[in-house]
Amino acid sequence: MCGITAFTGQEPALPFLLQGLEKLEYRGYDSAGVSLVDPEGIITKKAKGKLEALKEELNKEMYLQQAGIGHTRWATHGIPSHLNSHPHINADNTISIVHNGIIENYQSIKEGLEMQEYTFHSQTDSEVIVHLLDYYYDGDMIKALKKVTSYLEGSYALCVTTLDEPDTIYVAKKESPMILGKTDTAAFCASDIPALIAYTKEIIALEDQQMAILKPGKIQVLDQEGNKVDVQPVFVPYDLEAAQKNGYETFMEKEIAEQPFVIKETLRSRIEDHILMPELDDLAMEDIHAIYMIACGTAYHASLYAQYLGREWLSIPIQCVPASEFRYGNYPVDEHSLCLFVSQSGETADTLAALKACKKKNAKTIAVCNVLDSSISRIADTTLYTCAGPEIAVASTKAYTTQLTLLACIMLKLAELAKVEVNGYDQLLHDVKALPETIESMLGMEEQMKEYASFLKEQHDAYFIGRQLDYVSVLEGALKLKEISYVHADAYYAGELKHGPIALIEEGTVVIALATQKDVASKTISNIEETIARGANVILIKAKGVHSDKIAHQIEIPDIHPYLACLPATILLQQFALWSAKEKGCNVDQPRNLAKSVTVE
Amino acid sequence: MCGITAFTGQEPALPFLLQGLEKLEYRGYDSAGVSLVDPEGIITKKAKGKLEALKEELNKEMYLQQAGIGHTRWATHGIPSHLNSHPHINADNTISIVHNGIIENYQSIKEGLEMQEYTFHSQTDSEVIVHLLDYYYDGDMIKALKKVTSYLEGSYALCVTTLDEPDTIYVAKKESPMILGKTDTAAFCASDIPALIAYTKEIIALEDQQMAILKPGKIQVLDQEGNKVDVQPVFVPYDLEAAQKNGYETFMEKEIAEQPFVIKETLRSRIEDHILMPELDDLAMEDIHAIYMIACGTAYHASLYAQYLGREWLSIPIQCVPASEFRYGNYPVDEHSLCLFVSQSGETADTLAALKACKKKNAKTIAVCNVLDSSISRIADTTLYTCAGPEIAVASTKAYTTQLTLLACIMLKLAELAKVEVNGYDQLLHDVKALPETIESMLGMEEQMKEYASFLKEQHDAYFIGRQLDYVSVLEGALKLKEISYVHADAYYAGELKHGPIALIEEGTVVIALATQKDVASKTISNIEETIARGANVILIKAKGVHSDKIAHQIEIPDIHPYLACLPATILLQQFALWSAKEKGCNVDQPRNLAKSVTVE
Repeated sequence: MCGITAFTGQEPALPFLLQGLEKLEYRGYDSAGVSLVDPEGIITKKAKGKLEALKEELNKEMYLQQAGIGHTRWATHGIPSHLNSHPHINADNTISIVHNGIIENYQSIKEGLEMQEYTFHSQTDSEVIVHLLDYYYDGDMIKALKKVTSYLEGSYALCVTTLDEPDTIYVAKKESPMILGKTDTAAFCASDIPALIAYTKEIIALEDQQMAILKPGKIQVLDQEGNKVDVQPVFVPYDLEAAQKNGYETFMEKEIAEQPFVIKETLRSRIEDHILMPELDDLAMEDIHAIYMIACGTAYHASLYAQYLGREWLSIPIQCVPASEFRYGNYPVDEHSLCLFVSQSGETADTLAALKACKKKNAKTIAVCNVLDSSISRIADTTLYTCAGPEIAVASTKAYTTQLTLLACIMLKLAELAKVEVNGYDQLLHDVKALPETIESMLGMEEQMKEYASFLKEQHDAYFIGRQLDYVSVLEGALKLKEISYVHADAYYAGELKHGPIALIEEGTVVIALATQKDVASKTISNIEETIARGANVILIKAKGVHSDKIAHQIEIPDIHPYLACLPATILLQQFALWSAKEKGCNVDQPRNLAKSVTVE
Repeated sequence: MCGITAFTGQEPALPFLLQGLEKLEYRGYDSAGVSLVDPEGIITKKAKGKLEALKEELNKEMYLQQAGIGHTRWATHGIPSHLNSHPHINADNTISIVHNGIIENYQSIKEGLEMQEYTFHSQTDSEVIVHLLDYYYDGDMIKALKKVTSYLEGSYALCVTTLDEPDTIYVAKKESPMILGKTDTAAFCASDIPALIAYTKEIIALEDQQMAILKPGKIQVLDQEGNKVDVQPVFVPYDLEAAQKNGYETFMEKEIAEQPFVIKETLRSRIEDHILMPELDDLAMEDIHAIYMIACGTAYHASLYAQYLGREWLSIPIQCVPASEFRYGNYPVDEHSLCLFVSQSGETADTLAALKACKKKNAKTIAVCNVLDSSISRIADTTLYTCAGPEIAVASTKAYTTQLTLLACIMLKLAELAKVEVNGYDQLLHDVKALPETIESMLGMEEQMKEYASFLKEQHDAYFIGRQLDYVSVLEGALKLKEISYVHADAYYAGELKHGPIALIEEGTVVIALATQKDVASKTISNIEETIARGANVILIKAKGVHSDKIAHQIEIPDIHPYLACLPATILLQQFALWSAKEKGCNVDQPRNLAKSVTVE
């Protein structure tokens, strides 16, 4: 997954390209590069590592060229290196491209081009594109792009410059995002809105199979055949300030602290004496024979939570499947299926592909997204938004808890539509409303979690265990820890420990156990005691009234309906991961190998 | 699987028979029995349960007879009981036999014998042999044996005594082991070397279709036609414990090596041009609205495999849930539910509790067990048996692959009952039949896996990745590794890697990737390349035709239907875990913290 930018105008292009790449660094930071179009030839500069390295390189000279393209890379093919960095250029340095996406059939194209005497300098899939363009280009770049994109299998957002037309940027897109914008004197594009927002608040989201021609002050969108398409820009009410750290050392800390507020925002006008969700009022639950929950990573854990509630309340079979498995699996989706997609960015490639497949089969589709006008939200029948605001830290915190909150409301709404009477409905609704205060009170427990996190200082491993809904929380707790602190953390069903994983427990091993679900708490306590017998150092997160003398470290969540206990428990687990990472000196916001939004398979 | 012994000499036979049975108890311990040839008649003593019970019975008197046969039983047909115990005798108590193996066509032989007025006392397949011998015996036992064995379909190792020749033991063998030995004053035989080793170290392993005549101090081997065969004994250099492990250093190695045989036994009389599973013929699939697969640990992985096949073939919602979660979950089980329980021991506490709960709700219940008359098999409506024989090593190997084999047959049978046409049915059936040979060929790849396992020597972690059915295999591969080598191994959906776990990959991290499912192999290869870009040391287990230049260590499984690829892949992963544990000096058979059968929550 990468981020790309492009600019053409009556002023120097580099400032836009660099500020844009900076805003897009959340999409990857293995290497970065730019091409600037100069009448003397195309100037290309690249650097391995973070954007800072490229900036240093570029600071050595003055670059006043008025058109260019830029790229920040998250390696998918080939190691992060200078040669594998974008932009890629053709042999006589007359065409330069940046690409975001994956070309699946690059090997066969590469072999074909090699037979035509093309020489490859990188291990990337992207390099085939520039040589293929070179092969087909005869002075008409749109003609060449049409030809080339017809050969490409996979996904791409593509920006192309040529020496023949130094003031023109050519753009093409399929399954990777591309946002266009312009001023009176310039036109530009990038992979995401924040890269454009300092220049314009009116944006065009290019659609799949479309192309565009950018010239100073002008944008022309074309369809697959090259016919002009009339597109109106939309206004984005985006607040750039929101992306600042607001006094916190890291974005993750800021985002953890924002949770009471963003949960409140997410619940705003959603809840009175019942759930207000007019978007779903027309959903005929009696026609629904199966529910599928589809998502990736943290959003998949949120979906597991929703699945649990659904199984408690609805008599419809409900299945939660990782999107990467779902899209290649044989699920009997049809017009009687309700498919629910959860994605913070709304751009997650596997989730998006699964959504498209379900639409084709005429399923009812609901999306839960955090980003307005994202690809997933544009395609789903209905999108319900978490109001978490921009999440910059790669490890999701506020997006996850707002997903849990919104999904609890959605499942209650589905139960109401299915005319199911939910046990303890009033208590549940009361506790949902009180979530912002409950979460606020959890933030005060940070010192305690910081102390517990110090247990991991010398540890390489951690094991999370829980039953029923606690299993969802331990999955997320373990993911958070491994994402940012590189502690090898894993989550197990407490009852499955004895069937193998307990072999890993030795003197001093840290076990994080959850017992917030009172009806199975005593079973989990038994499992915990078995790990203590093998020397485990156990931290227990528990509901009031759950008791064990043998566990040295215990922390209690406030009284709350057990179906909502995931939320306060998750705050503790976020703090645990955060402080473990900080103690170990890890980069909390930009963990190695990870990108914020996974827009490739 | 059973164990048999026989002795004829100038000294009492009983001491040899009993010490031999003791050494063979690993082959089964449901019941035991002996026949001793006395001029007054054949004396037969049996006892249900372990050998100790028989010894107590025999201690009541002194038995000085100089010829006899003995048996320790692992029930396959008929519950463990006195009547079903061996030896079996004819009506006038002049012939007694012990049998190890399975007679596939015993039903039709039994019907024929019943028409000849023969009365049967047991539910065993073995009893037909003694009556058939009685029918054909006219004073020449070799002639009778030739006739009888020509009728038997299946496997047998057979010892026969007659009152007519009190000092002679007749032996016949096909596909079940039979080891012969002698001293100057005695001759004897047994199912395995350990039973002989205290008496001689020179042994003869009888070959298929051969017969033998034992007299004190003499052994005569005959071919199928009754012609004498000249056989030279071989010297066995190993000690007793090693002998019990059949020359293998550990039980796990022995059990891995047994897989071709036990899979063959499991498939015996189950498969012709369709699946033979009369136990399920009365199951009304049209009444089934939901299927639940319930199990723990390794058996849970086998159930995930069955779930996958079920989703491909059946249009009924199917869910696989760990037993510890199922029993406390809110699953709408009723008389329209089919619940399938998998447990090697048949005693797993959580699985048993879940079974009882499902029975109470009037669900249809099927068990897959390896131990006859176990608690689960007694309670389930129907039990289908894996014929893995006793599994001694705590980490399951042959029990798992026989579960996979039997579950594949069960799911095919359910598809047939549901009148579903299975795509590529003939190919699938062909490949199921060929599993024993396929697995045999995998055993030859041990050296390669041993080399790969050495990569873990300095490693604390390992990551297993795969998609679709490969995900089941990586779950089991990771469990095996952590169970016996204490390497912190975990399995991830390949497509989920980028959503967090890839943060754990660093220079030299060992990643075991599976790509046996061709339709998603290229996606997995992309994910693998992402880990390589971060320094991972990848071992790829792949199907023929799957290709990547970038992966240094690749091993190919034979051409096989993708739905069966789990089986050969699992053999490799077993070997990988085994050799990793051996290199690290771990106790392979009895890993720390684990027990063979988990009979508590």
